[in-house]
Amino acid sequence: MPVAQPDPPLFKGGGWVVLAHGGGGRTMHDLLERLILPAFRNAALEARHDAAVVEIRGVRLAFTTDSYVVSPYVFPGGDIGTMAVYGTINDLAMAGARPICLSASLILEEGFPMDGLQRVVASMGKSARAAGVEIVTGDTKVVDRGKGDGIFINTSGVGVVEHSLMIAPSSIRSGDAVIVSGDLGRHGIAVMAVREGLSFETTMESDTAPLWRVVEAILAAGIEIHCLRDLTRGGLASALVEIAETANVSIQIDETTVPVRDEVRGACEVLGLDPLYVANEGRFVAFVPRRDAERAVRLMHSDPGGAEACVIGWVSENIAGLVTAKTALGTDRIVDMFSGEQLPRIC
Amino acid sequence: MPVAQPDPPLFKGGGWVVLAHGGGGRTMHDLLERLILPAFRNAALEARHDAAVVEIRGVRLAFTTDSYVVSPYVFPGGDIGTMAVYGTINDLAMAGARPICLSASLILEEGFPMDGLQRVVASMGKSARAAGVEIVTGDTKVVDRGKGDGIFINTSGVGVVEHSLMIAPSSIRSGDAVIVSGDLGRHGIAVMAVREGLSFETTMESDTAPLWRVVEAILAAGIEIHCLRDLTRGGLASALVEIAETANVSIQIDETTVPVRDEVRGACEVLGLDPLYVANEGRFVAFVPRRDAERAVRLMHSDPGGAEACVIGWVSENIAGLVTAKTALGTDRIVDMFSGEQLPRIC
Repeated sequence: MPVAQPDPPLFKGGGWVVLAHGGGGRTMHDLLERLILPAFRNAALEARHDAAVVEIRGVRLAFTTDSYVVSPYVFPGGDIGTMAVYGTINDLAMAGARPICLSASLILEEGFPMDGLQRVVASMGKSARAAGVEIVTGDTKVVDRGKGDGIFINTSGVGVVEHSLMIAPSSIRSGDAVIVSGDLGRHGIAVMAVREGLSFETTMESDTAPLWRVVEAILAAGIEIHCLRDLTRGGLASALVEIAETANVSIQIDETTVPVRDEVRGACEVLGLDPLYVANEGRFVAFVPRRDAERAVRLMHSDPGGAEACVIGWVSENIAGLVTAKTALGTDRIVDMFSGEQLPRIC
Repeated sequence: MPVAQPDPPLFKGGGWVVLAHGGGGRTMHDLLERLILPAFRNAALEARHDAAVVEIRGVRLAFTTDSYVVSPYVFPGGDIGTMAVYGTINDLAMAGARPICLSASLILEEGFPMDGLQRVVASMGKSARAAGVEIVTGDTKVVDRGKGDGIFINTSGVGVVEHSLMIAPSSIRSGDAVIVSGDLGRHGIAVMAVREGLSFETTMESDTAPLWRVVEAILAAGIEIHCLRDLTRGGLASALVEIAETANVSIQIDETTVPVRDEVRGACEVLGLDPLYVANEGRFVAFVPRRDAERAVRLMHSDPGGAEACVIGWVSENIAGLVTAKTALGTDRIVDMFSGEQLPRIC
């Protein structure tokens, strides 16, 4: 990691948690690397992937967890229940694992309306059935009024890895194509619009969607996937930088090829946001060998979740950890992680 | 369930979440049965057990989840990190499963001290190593100040079932012995004392402890365990009533044989609490065939977690769902679930 500081002063002399520690950017990355991961050290965590792959009695299982604290808990295109199911399924899919079952753990604030709870659990049940997984175990906690925020949900998931690939940053090779599965930024803009009371000409809906089926199609075609990553907190930019640092490679993307809808681009311009950093919920980036890139894109087009898939860049061995983007002006800019997050509590 | 009402009015016309919905008693039971479980319906959930047992590619896995919201997050004998690791390991053990790996998901409140976080993750790492499990995947979220309460932790766990028993309420038979693994109430009293600023002559420490090893010893001896349940929220009483209702059996216990330390009994008297309802973190109840009872107790005595294990009662087919306790006066009293919980946020 070329940008790591030799001394981690933040965690030496106390300090406290700030919103950026949950933002998916550099501040969160540092908290994980310097304070949290050292307490748990093991091979599965070292892979730095969305889901751990562990072998139990000869079966390769993927295991992942995510807590959802999105505010507000209902937004155009979904709610916290939809996200909690699809988000965790997607983390399994990003390890190339077929999702099998989920857990659901609710932290409710005293005073949260029963109607809201009923809506959220119905969304969870519906999303799970749609994705062919079962919610097999759960937990419910209630905290006093003012000590929570309506509803937080944790889902953890178990999936099974049915291939022999190692889908992780360490498998990325120079020459790999970088494919994005669809247009970026809709989830972030949809949540921001309702939270901030902004209205646009068209209502933007979150891109929340389950990603296993499109991954399954690519795997079934025998394409040698090197790495997958869903583009949530911190957006495409943070994901690419994190992957480049972990894999010790350089990534060059062509910004003009990254699909962004006009209304999202417009909203970003008005709000001063960069779509590369805006959160998504149903989008991912895939690293595949150059020879398979075109075929992978075609396969993704056959799924509604991958209709706008395209190659946006390439991996090289230039400078380890460096991500650059060719701009509309033809110049190159360095893409770094955002320090925090443009919009807290987006997932 | 003999006490179920025909109409669930609470969830028909709105209403809102109250603390009792997370208390482990009747109110929480009703919320689960009437609102949450119907949204997810599947065979694994129907077992109504702490951990789900699912078969994946021929391997029987146990899968469980728990969110920890205990307040304060540090208490005599442990902290939220110790609890989050041991509590989830214990839920796997209660399915008779060898714990393999855990996930850890933190929800931090803006302003939470880094020192506190460092202490908690160190506790988690230490507890995991002591219990021989790895924390293989995780997540960190931060919520704005006033929208959380310092730190909440979710841990989920995966274990492997290495025997062919079905350890669940449905396996309980008339004549089974009811064994409690040790003295009751220390966790609840320890947390209450520090929260309420009470002091007793001796500092009471939480009984937080991992339970897999003592369960493993009983299984290894070939004892046909019918059901196991750890005695957390709602205490022994709520656990027995829930099991009696699920298994459609009657349970008679002798209250005078239930081990409770003098200082816990004294504190309960002062505070007007019934030790049968006070939460524990390292205690469980086991249902085994009468012929195996004495041997199971002896095996439990060989483990520090089971040093005070003893038979406290028996299962009969008297009246389905009924739990009674013989009191010190020689009379029988009906034991029902507490409506809510004597002490919110005990776990």
